[in-house]
Formats: sequence, C-alpha cells, structure tokens
Amino acid sequence: MTAEFDVLGIGNAIVDVLAPTDDAFLDREDLVKGYMTLIDAERAETLYARMPAGVEASGGSAANTMAGLASLGGRAAFVGRVRDDALGQVFAHDIRAIGVDFATPVATEGPGTARCLVMVTPDAQRTMATYLGACVGLGPDDVDPVKVAAASITYLEGYLWDPENGKAAFRKAIACAHEAGRRVALSLSDAFCVHRFRPEFMELLSDGGVDILFANETEISALFETGDFDTALQATRCLGITAALTRSEKGSVIVGGDEVHVLDASAPEKLVDTTGAGDLFAAGFLFGLTRDLGLARSARLGSLCAAEVIGHYGPRPQVGLAEHVSGKY
Amino acid sequence: MTAEFDVLGIGNAIVDVLAPTDDAFLDREDLVKGYMTLIDAERAETLYARMPAGVEASGGSAANTMAGLASLGGRAAFVGRVRDDALGQVFAHDIRAIGVDFATPVATEGPGTARCLVMVTPDAQRTMATYLGACVGLGPDDVDPVKVAAASITYLEGYLWDPENGKAAFRKAIACAHEAGRRVALSLSDAFCVHRFRPEFMELLSDGGVDILFANETEISALFETGDFDTALQATRCLGITAALTRSEKGSVIVGGDEVHVLDASAPEKLVDTTGAGDLFAAGFLFGLTRDLGLARSARLGSLCAAEVIGHYGPRPQVGLAEHVSGKY
Repeated sequence: MTAEFDVLGIGNAIVDVLAPTDDAFLDREDLVKGYMTLIDAERAETLYARMPAGVEASGGSAANTMAGLASLGGRAAFVGRVRDDALGQVFAHDIRAIGVDFATPVATEGPGTARCLVMVTPDAQRTMATYLGACVGLGPDDVDPVKVAAASITYLEGYLWDPENGKAAFRKAIACAHEAGRRVALSLSDAFCVHRFRPEFMELLSDGGVDILFANETEISALFETGDFDTALQATRCLGITAALTRSEKGSVIVGGDEVHVLDASAPEKLVDTTGAGDLFAAGFLFGLTRDLGLARSARLGSLCAAEVIGHYGPRPQVGLAEHVSGKY
Repeated sequence: MTAEFDVLGIGNAIVDVLAPTDDAFLDREDLVKGYMTLIDAERAETLYARMPAGVEASGGSAANTMAGLASLGGRAAFVGRVRDDALGQVFAHDIRAIGVDFATPVATEGPGTARCLVMVTPDAQRTMATYLGACVGLGPDDVDPVKVAAASITYLEGYLWDPENGKAAFRKAIACAHEAGRRVALSLSDAFCVHRFRPEFMELLSDGGVDILFANETEISALFETGDFDTALQATRCLGITAALTRSEKGSVIVGGDEVHVLDASAPEKLVDTTGAGDLFAAGFLFGLTRDLGLARSARLGSLCAAEVIGHYGPRPQVGLAEHVSGKY
C-alpha cells in the first residue's frame, strides 16, 4: 500500500529555552555537560531563575526530526502531547507551520507544556535539563493505528521510555507498524537514557522490534557497555539491522546488510550550538531511505542537515532544507 | 544627589515572536513593511496561525534599550506590565537575568502578556504587529516617584502613548524626573505612532518635557511633516534639545547645544534582522551620556551596539556588550 506519510515521529513535545552559559555554571548546577537530565517543576523554576536571558524555540527530539523531514519536502506526521497554554500553542504552531501533520489532542488539565532548559557553552555544546510536564500523559490511546499504518517509517525517540505511559505507546506503535508491513526506527537519544533502560532497549533491538537504529558514539558505547567504538560497531553489526552511528566532527558510520560506510562530517560555516544535530541527521537519513537513495547518500544528506542546524541557535532548520541541500548529496 | 540608576526605562513589556517571511506575505496580510501595526487578540491569533515557524525572545522597545544598557555595564531599571503567564515569566526572567531592575507588579487578571509578531524579510527588515495585552493596564500607579528621582535619565518610548493609561504614566514620570533635577529622553518609536499623536508629541518637545530625543529618518520627517531630511534636521535644532537622528546604513546625525555631528554607521559582520537596531543605538548613546563621553563618542557607541543586534535574530544583544565594544569607541 502506498504510504500517506514518509515518517511518523512519536516523542516528547517540548519547547526549548536556550541560553549561553559557561562550564562553571554547569558545575555549580550539578549538570553533566552534553547530556540530558530530567528535572521536576520546582527544579525547573530555580534553574531557570539562575540561567541567563535566552530565547524560546520549539524542540523535542523526534519533533525536530519531523520538522527537518518536512523542510526537506518529506511527508511527516508527529504524535506528542502539549497543554492548552502559551508554550503549547507555540509548539503546535511551529510544527504545523513547517508542514508536519500534528493532531494529538491537547491536554486541558494537568502539568503544563514540557520545557527543556538548554545551556549552550562557548564550545557550542548543549547541556539539557528537561521538565516533562504534559508529556507524561502521552499513552497508547494517542497512537492511532491507522496513522501508523499510513507511514513508511515510524520513528521513536528513546526519551519516550521515561514518561510512564510512553513505553506502552512505543510498543503499540511498533506492533501497528510491523503489522502493516512498515519499518520502525529508534533513536537512543542520550547515554543516560540508555543507562536507565539498557535491558529493555537491548530486548527491542534483538527481537526484531527495531529496523533502523540511530545512536551517537556515547550512546552506542553505553548500549554495549564498552569504551571502544570499534567494539560497539561490531556489536551493532551483529544486530542485523540498519544503524547510523554518528560521531560529531568525526563523521558517521553506517551499517546495513553487508554494507559498512564511513563518512566525513559536513562542516558548518560557523559552529554555534549543537542542539538538534542528531535529530537533523536523522531527518536527512530517513528522508534518503524513503527516497531509496541508499545508505551512503542518505547519510551525506543527514550530515548536511546537521551542519545547517549547528550553525545557529536552536534545534530546527532556519532555512528551507530542500533548497539548502539541493545538488549537494 | 548621586543617581542609583543611570537610566530608568518605561515602556511596553513585550515578548517577540520572530519568523522569516517574504514581501508577498506582508502584502497579503495588509501590513506595511518596516512599521508597527497594533492588532487585537483575534487578529493576533489568525496572523500567528499564518506565520511560519519562529522563535520567541523578550522584546519591547524601552526594555531592549535597558537590556543593552545593562549589558554595557550601566545601571538600568525598567517599568512595564506583564501578566502571570508563561510569556510574562519569560519577559521577567530575561530582563532580570541581564541585570535590569524590574519590579512592576505582575497583573493577575485581564489580558495576557503582550506579543509582537515580527516578520523578518530576506532584506533583514522587520515588520511588526503588536497585541498589547497586559500593557494596556500600565498606568501612573506603576510609576514610582522615588525610582524616577533615583535615575539620571528617564527614558520613554513613544509607543506608550497608545495604551490608554500610558500617557498618564508618561506625564507623571516627566514631572517626577524634572522635579528631581533629572533628564527625560523620548524615542518617537515609529512613524505611524508619530502620525497618531503628532500634536501631543510636538507639545511635549516644545514645552520642555523632553531633554533628549531619539528618532529615525521617517519618524523625524513625520514629526515635522516634511519629506526632506535636512529640513527636519533644521527644525530639530530649533527645539534646543539634544537629539539623535538615526538613518540606518547612512549613519546618524546628532545635535545638541551648538554641536552637530554627522557619523557613519558601524557595519555588522552580516545583516540578519534589524529588530532592535534603534533600541540598541539608544542604549549605547544613553550609556555614553551618563558617562560624559560627549555626543560624538556616545553616538559611536550607539552605532556599535546597533551593529551587534542586527547581526542575529532577535532584539537584544547575544554577547556581553561591554566586552564587545571595548576599545572601539
């Protein structure tokens, strides 16, 4: 059956608050540089009060990926939960404005729309503290089997394993996708996230739940409990699925079937803020797969999309990606 | 008496929503390029729904100027009204985080925090549509005579003439400042704003209500109803006050006492978004005046501050201005 959507993303619907800080600030606040920490409403308030002036921009890992896919000209849909507050309106506006189908019912009670406090250090690294808010209400009822069946690929962010009902939504989506003969992609999201749920992720990856895996170097190392990238790469190959392993400025390694591709990174004009780099790599890679571009070209496209987003503040493209990457991959 | 604050700014407390659009969008929405239009809640909703994905950043003309002044190392205070909603928290956080004293009571009922929809065209020009929301409640009770008396200069934005009680707050601030032997500065804000209130502005400027005037070329031309800049300049000189007339890339002309200075603009590394250019010029110029740098050096400082803010999206500095301008003026 022809797919109505290229990719359906399911994830946390979050508005980012981005501000420049220094390493000393992260130390004082007990935040681990480069990683994501979950925080409660109270901590979100005190941490925000200490952060410098910032800007707000729609974020969320899978949501950023869907925004990137739509910007490339792909047909994207997103499932995620916001509240009927100002930040929820911002999130819904931005994802629809970029052309993503977003129809998850808005919560009218309970915690407010999720916020991620993103501290950007002078080396362009981002360190995140997330208050999940309304996202904790996302559950299997929000996963529409018809919509999942209508997407070539269903894309899940590992972060979804954190909110209580997220796992059930996740498992339902996998079952619906595979029943319809579609593929499932998973991003490991964050090494701490992998630490929290390692046995469950291993099970998903081993029992055929996932067809396409995205992980950066620290995440794949955490999954296989090794400090050596090559060891992690060999273990990934044994999974027998397609995997895109990203290594920041060292480029990426793609495995799938008998193929292994080692690709250089695309250099941004200026490195400003790495927020969204992995998400946008996934956008380009998934777009390539749905257009049958092959692993190497898909990865090159992912790399171009990542390079655009790290050249400015914020986790989503600031230019139309289809035009931006045209003729370059 | 030594002043506790260098400048106290009074203005509309606004959060900007910035998004890239093209000229055709402005035409379709009946917006006049480069100007500010006031809109109601309903129009704000429909216009926002049609705008592309954007970013949110604290704004407001006088508030941007105070943020710039604080970033230069000046002692700044701001009076403006937000509601107890998410955007109000963002506004209060950002202005305090940059070091500005902000103690105006937060509204607990009535319209939400003001939003300005800023459409940025590829030529970096910004066109604004403002929903005043909670700002309409700002009145004379919000002006603390002790705080006004404690500031070397009280800075008023012309936009304040729009909300009903703004004028009364404005007049009270002028009276308090002059009673304490302090100076009053006024920004004309926008040519449409000048058209709306020309007789009142002329009266303020003629009867000694204002000591320092900021206007760009279209605003000063609107004030004196002339299409010729030189005619407007001569009319400004007759007012017998200090005036900074800004002309975008053509630089600025400063008059005061017997002095007339014609200065070149500072070129930004890259022209991205002119939002906040005039506000940041005022920040640098006012900082210079409070440090007795003279008209020419103060204007050069203003020009450097404006050049920083037009090099990126958003109306406030993204770097510490004191360091950024050090040794350059």
